[in-house]
Amino acid sequence: MVDSRFFQKPAPASISDIVTLTGVEVVFAGSQTPDLSRRFSDVAPLDKAQADDISFLDNIKYADAFALTEAGACFVRRKFADRAPKHLVLLITEEPYFAYALIARHFYSDTVFTPEISAKAHIAATATIGKGARIDAGAVIGEQAIIGDDCWIGANTSIGDGVVIGKKCSIGALCTISHTMIGDRVTLHRGIHIGQDGFGFAPGRKGIVKVPQLGRVMIGNDVEIGSGTCIDRGAGPDTIIGDHCKIDNLVQIGHNVQLGKYVIIAAQCGIAGSTQIGDGAMLGGQVGISGHIHIGSGVKVAAQSGIMTDIPAGSTYGGSPAIPVKDWHRQTIAVANLLKKKETSE
Amino acid sequence: MVDSRFFQKPAPASISDIVTLTGVEVVFAGSQTPDLSRRFSDVAPLDKAQADDISFLDNIKYADAFALTEAGACFVRRKFADRAPKHLVLLITEEPYFAYALIARHFYSDTVFTPEISAKAHIAATATIGKGARIDAGAVIGEQAIIGDDCWIGANTSIGDGVVIGKKCSIGALCTISHTMIGDRVTLHRGIHIGQDGFGFAPGRKGIVKVPQLGRVMIGNDVEIGSGTCIDRGAGPDTIIGDHCKIDNLVQIGHNVQLGKYVIIAAQCGIAGSTQIGDGAMLGGQVGISGHIHIGSGVKVAAQSGIMTDIPAGSTYGGSPAIPVKDWHRQTIAVANLLKKKETSE
Amino acid sequence: MVDSRFFQKPAPASISDIVTLTGVEVVFAGSQTPDLSRRFSDVAPLDKAQADDISFLDNIKYADAFALTEAGACFVRRKFADRAPKHLVLLITEEPYFAYALIARHFYSDTVFTPEISAKAHIAATATIGKGARIDAGAVIGEQAIIGDDCWIGANTSIGDGVVIGKKCSIGALCTISHTMIGDRVTLHRGIHIGQDGFGFAPGRKGIVKVPQLGRVMIGNDVEIGSGTCIDRGAGPDTIIGDHCKIDNLVQIGHNVQLGKYVIIAAQCGIAGSTQIGDGAMLGGQVGISGHIHIGSGVKVAAQSGIMTDIPAGSTYGGSPAIPVKDWHRQTIAVANLLKKKETSE
Repeated sequence: MVDSRFFQKPAPASISDIVTLTGVEVVFAGSQTPDLSRRFSDVAPLDKAQADDISFLDNIKYADAFALTEAGACFVRRKFADRAPKHLVLLITEEPYFAYALIARHFYSDTVFTPEISAKAHIAATATIGKGARIDAGAVIGEQAIIGDDCWIGANTSIGDGVVIGKKCSIGALCTISHTMIGDRVTLHRGIHIGQDGFGFAPGRKGIVKVPQLGRVMIGNDVEIGSGTCIDRGAGPDTIIGDHCKIDNLVQIGHNVQLGKYVIIAAQCGIAGSTQIGDGAMLGGQVGISGHIHIGSGVKVAAQSGIMTDIPAGSTYGGSPAIPVKDWHRQTIAVANLLKKKETSE
Repeated sequence: MVDSRFFQKPAPASISDIVTLTGVEVVFAGSQTPDLSRRFSDVAPLDKAQADDISFLDNIKYADAFALTEAGACFVRRKFADRAPKHLVLLITEEPYFAYALIARHFYSDTVFTPEISAKAHIAATATIGKGARIDAGAVIGEQAIIGDDCWIGANTSIGDGVVIGKKCSIGALCTISHTMIGDRVTLHRGIHIGQDGFGFAPGRKGIVKVPQLGRVMIGNDVEIGSGTCIDRGAGPDTIIGDHCKIDNLVQIGHNVQLGKYVIIAAQCGIAGSTQIGDGAMLGGQVGISGHIHIGSGVKVAAQSGIMTDIPAGSTYGGSPAIPVKDWHRQTIAVANLLKKKETSE
Repeated sequence: MVDSRFFQKPAPASISDIVTLTGVEVVFAGSQTPDLSRRFSDVAPLDKAQADDISFLDNIKYADAFALTEAGACFVRRKFADRAPKHLVLLITEEPYFAYALIARHFYSDTVFTPEISAKAHIAATATIGKGARIDAGAVIGEQAIIGDDCWIGANTSIGDGVVIGKKCSIGALCTISHTMIGDRVTLHRGIHIGQDGFGFAPGRKGIVKVPQLGRVMIGNDVEIGSGTCIDRGAGPDTIIGDHCKIDNLVQIGHNVQLGKYVIIAAQCGIAGSTQIGDGAMLGGQVGISGHIHIGSGVKVAAQSGIMTDIPAGSTYGGSPAIPVKDWHRQTIAVANLLKKKETSE
């Protein structure tokens, strides 16, 4: 199913291999002949999969596609097993998407690249480039910059003076990075801007003065950041992105913001300066968060919410201004009821 | 009126030419001498136009400017004709902006460029470049990529391995495109990122696993996409942008999203993964749409709305969470009335 | 405190110097020996400052850090002076952040660069480059473009044909600028796109016609624009950004928009076409403003608000659709009270 222009054909995997990788229970339903050596050649969505493909059902919205799938095998929760077509080998797990991800990664391992420093890259004499690195055409590496082993720096990307990038990082094309220290195994997609001046202006009776932005951006290990995202450097303190954070496209992160570990931020969120977000927090798309506030660990925020005050750890908020999500849903209903009352009295 | 630094002086057009192009009815009001051979040399806004210029009135907000305009001729609806100054030649049409667009395109045809492959572009040996193409300095074209006839690839843009671009496409400067097939007559403005990994993470008890993104982006014919917009490639299915879609700046389109034909999306909208939008739908600015939902054909959504559920074809929605727009307006009034009641009882 | 990889060590300043620069009143509290010749070597945040550092307290949220600071001196309002630790030299002012900004600028003056035109830049034969300019690798300067004295054009940035840039401007890496005139002392950060076609489509019974965009972008003096921001050129009139405007990251400004002077726009705002904003207006983050409306001088808009109608000068608005901010707060309370009533009656 996968377009060979863009992806290399994977080596096949047997059902035994799948069990070893994912720990699923295998069910050969109906009159199927149990055969753990049966091999599958690819993964595919339910509606496009063929007999040699493995698929998954994670969202109940796709139950109909599951019932009709021509896939050979499918990761699925036990409770949906009885909806399966008779030919399907069931790979039973309570985490079908997670198991799918593991097998998909088995088929399609992280991009392997040939180390090569393009003659058309512009690398400062004092920069240090690690072993096994690939630097594409038009990339600019500044003075005293350090690029770790096995990094890939994309075309026309600009790495500023003094920037340090750890090992096995992938920096996409057309990024700009300055005033920044990056850990290991970090993936930046394309068109990301990190380390520019924060929006720091001091208004006074004599006009507006630009405030020098004297901090850095510190990015931990295993971070992934989406295309078009901007992260301003600190004003004095640093802007900090903790280990394992996953940040989607077109997100704005202001100066001095501190993200804990495993924070997940969906597309187009904006986090104003000096706000702190605890470990494992999750923000839906287009959320806005005011400056100088504290979001506790494990907090979840509904899409498009506006956070103006501190939020205690573990809570779920929604709305603008945001309130506990249960109250938000009840308010939505109460406001809708205003119309019903009016209709009744009309 | 137009700055000759940036635009070439157009050839003049007579009133007869205008009628032929746009089908308008011409009215020489008052004591004007009817003269269909009278020629106009340019288009201009109502408040800046001179006797040789053609203007248009489409939005009632500009009726005062219309009454005072020094333009020589003006596209206008019949119902506003009696507000015209006496010297004005009236070009009567119920679609004045559409007619203006046709005549403006007559004056200023699409950019004509000289085919040239810059010696400073970086083109892979196995790439195919069509006849009449222009490739600017710093552009990078990957292995096996195919660029159609008469395409213009802007400066420092990166086209990935295997990407296929049809005929007469204009790809602006500083774009990145990978894992993508593009139709004919497509315009991409600048700084657009298409084909990167979608935001695909499978959280499980053993951590977060990145899910390989194995689909493509399929862009139809006659599509236009604004600066800074990001379109992620499919996770398994493809991300699809139908023919004639018009997408504004800084829009986020997640993996597996499918847009029908003639979908119009204003700036800063975000569409989460796997959502489908029908033909002719229109989204106002900053709209957010959840994943895995279905927006019917012809749906209109007010700016800043948040769509969390399916919307039936032909309906108009507003608010966050969005509801039918009439209910939304009535809710807004009902909530405002809460204050009035309070004031009355105080 | 500041990382010497990224910032040059400043020359020290005495308390006398500070008084001269900022006009503060100096208080040597408790048993301190008054010594106006005491020198400080740097600025630092309250929680990281040491005895040789100057800090500031502007936001009451940091009062605890102020009480515990090890800084040597601190800008502070008189009313907080009694919370200071005994060793601290108090620099009393009603504008502590403004004073901090002045002294930080004294320590860290604007970036000084060595004029140099990279051999790897691509400069058209008819372009004019001013004295003292720096043009980095991969930058493309178009035909007839004029770059003023002492400008810095970043790596891989594209300046289109005919663009005029004034003196002492800093244009970051990976920007695209076309159809634009820029004043003096303008700072553009990275990945900014200015001058592309606005989103101009005329829908009619016979389809959608792209409307030629025949205006320019006119940017005044002393403007600063954040990374990822997009400013479309005018459709016929120009898009205008007045002197001293400060625009944050990822902002969208549509065609024909006119900003007065000293307008401040936070991140991710979107302003639709032909809207006018008066001098000194301030928009919070993620605000959306409809097209063809007028925002008066000095207007303030709360974050995430949606403006759909004209706003009179001097007023403060919030909400979506936005209303006077006091009414918005009262509505928020009235809606919350709907739940309380329900709880009471349950």
